[in-house]
Amino acid sequence: MDGAELTGKKVLITGASGFTGRHAVAYFRTAGAVVAAVVRRVGVHSFDNGVAVHVCDLNDKQQVRHLIDEVQPDYVLHLAGKNSVPDSWSDPLLVLETNVMAVLYLLDALRSCPAARTVIVGSRLKYTPEPGRLPQPPHPYSLSKALEEMVSLSWMSLFGQQIMLAEPGNLIGAGPSTGICSLLARHVVACEQEGKTEAFRLSGRDNTRDFLDVRDAVRAYATLLVQGTTGNVYPVVSGTERSLGEIADTLLTMTEAEIPVRWDGASSGPDGAGDQEEFSALRKLGWQPLIPFAQSLQDILSDVRTQHGRATE
Amino acid sequence: MDGAELTGKKVLITGASGFTGRHAVAYFRTAGAVVAAVVRRVGVHSFDNGVAVHVCDLNDKQQVRHLIDEVQPDYVLHLAGKNSVPDSWSDPLLVLETNVMAVLYLLDALRSCPAARTVIVGSRLKYTPEPGRLPQPPHPYSLSKALEEMVSLSWMSLFGQQIMLAEPGNLIGAGPSTGICSLLARHVVACEQEGKTEAFRLSGRDNTRDFLDVRDAVRAYATLLVQGTTGNVYPVVSGTERSLGEIADTLLTMTEAEIPVRWDGASSGPDGAGDQEEFSALRKLGWQPLIPFAQSLQDILSDVRTQHGRATE
Repeated sequence: MDGAELTGKKVLITGASGFTGRHAVAYFRTAGAVVAAVVRRVGVHSFDNGVAVHVCDLNDKQQVRHLIDEVQPDYVLHLAGKNSVPDSWSDPLLVLETNVMAVLYLLDALRSCPAARTVIVGSRLKYTPEPGRLPQPPHPYSLSKALEEMVSLSWMSLFGQQIMLAEPGNLIGAGPSTGICSLLARHVVACEQEGKTEAFRLSGRDNTRDFLDVRDAVRAYATLLVQGTTGNVYPVVSGTERSLGEIADTLLTMTEAEIPVRWDGASSGPDGAGDQEEFSALRKLGWQPLIPFAQSLQDILSDVRTQHGRATE
Repeated sequence: MDGAELTGKKVLITGASGFTGRHAVAYFRTAGAVVAAVVRRVGVHSFDNGVAVHVCDLNDKQQVRHLIDEVQPDYVLHLAGKNSVPDSWSDPLLVLETNVMAVLYLLDALRSCPAARTVIVGSRLKYTPEPGRLPQPPHPYSLSKALEEMVSLSWMSLFGQQIMLAEPGNLIGAGPSTGICSLLARHVVACEQEGKTEAFRLSGRDNTRDFLDVRDAVRAYATLLVQGTTGNVYPVVSGTERSLGEIADTLLTMTEAEIPVRWDGASSGPDGAGDQEEFSALRKLGWQPLIPFAQSLQDILSDVRTQHGRATE
């Protein structure tokens, strides 16, 4: 896919002011799409002039119906949701309402746009029930993402909708991420600009994760919107496991500051996100990651330095 | 169980003015329990003086929390819900909100009563996903009951609650039922009292169903509340398949009126509800159906005659 398929298409993006949402709005706008950026409240992020911002509480089904009637999207990228595991323990109802009912309201409203193609962004942390055994999700968040998937695929089958699931691994990039790369970059910049000397604490050096640049993930979502097979669940991963040691070492080559790192967790091995077979489904559609890992880290660091400089001006 | 375990216990019953709810309130009251009957609105049914009626919209989590704080139940029997398959097509969101979110609000509020034991009344029509295959529930109702079960058992495992699932088959008895026995009885009484001569239409004579008197079902729920194993899913069935022909023949022996019956559906065989192995789980707790089938039919007919007489006075 070269992006030309998106020119003039109406793309509705929920969670538009979030970490992935900001990158998604920028990508689709650059590709010539007519972007409807859906946010819960204004002012969290300022979008380009050309982006239509829609304020909508996705837990209010009347508002959602009105939104869809107004935008009549060709493509829908559903990024909104609660994504914090700890928060899912402190307010489990909120995570269920937001991750399950909001997607239901959205998909139900989309019954009036049968040609629309929708990508629901799930999570690799979703709970997978074992047949014949009592469901035992590790946290309310994992339950919410399991139900989100079941509800989405069921609505597809019940009402003939065009829905695909995307399951990103660890997305990294500039912006409001709470991932390990962003946290480490913020620590680096605090050492550079504030003379902070505390050690950054990480678990085992050999623990590996699959990291993917958020811009590559957004291109994957675009690929799925245009070419994905409805009803499929697509892992969105780089296919490469990297150790925490490699991340720390690479980031530390990008700064003059002395950053002590304390390794005090047990090694837990790979998280399995980089499974090659899973990786291949999106590759078959012509997608592949384009941004080198070191480039992602460099961009995160530059962004944090800029933000930090602005904040202390 | 002889019912003595219920004396003085606080039993909260949702959907109390529904078909099963009315029988449940009467049973627990007679057994000496302190009954809190939860209804969505007053006036649908008049309860005994000794029954505390609580008006609560179970889709309003603040109201549900307030209800539980006020009642502090020992036992909870959750009967409320949308149970019509056709209605689930005309308003699928309502059936999901009512059958999934209401149970979540209830169970979440019950975290403040860790000793409470709860029976959630599910349905044998619930959709069972096949591992590795796209979910394809036959209707939104079946999806809602699948999610209700998953949410209930997950809350149990996440928050250490004492929850059991009951899955009734075809419950029959006096009151506002839309089951085949009640419909046929109403037709009989219309022929008796209004001289109606139309045929009653039924599918194949040999089609069988498992029928259970609603009073036997209520005793089963009481047995589960007191003795059930948390996390188990209990079918609540009679264990006996009866043909539609037998039902029609038995009812017709109970009237002087001439009732033509038209058999115009294909035979579809048993619905599998009377599976002996499933039946045995409750039997091991000492429960068994006590009301003979002909007695159930006679009681339905008497009730319809009384109601009909009152309505035309």
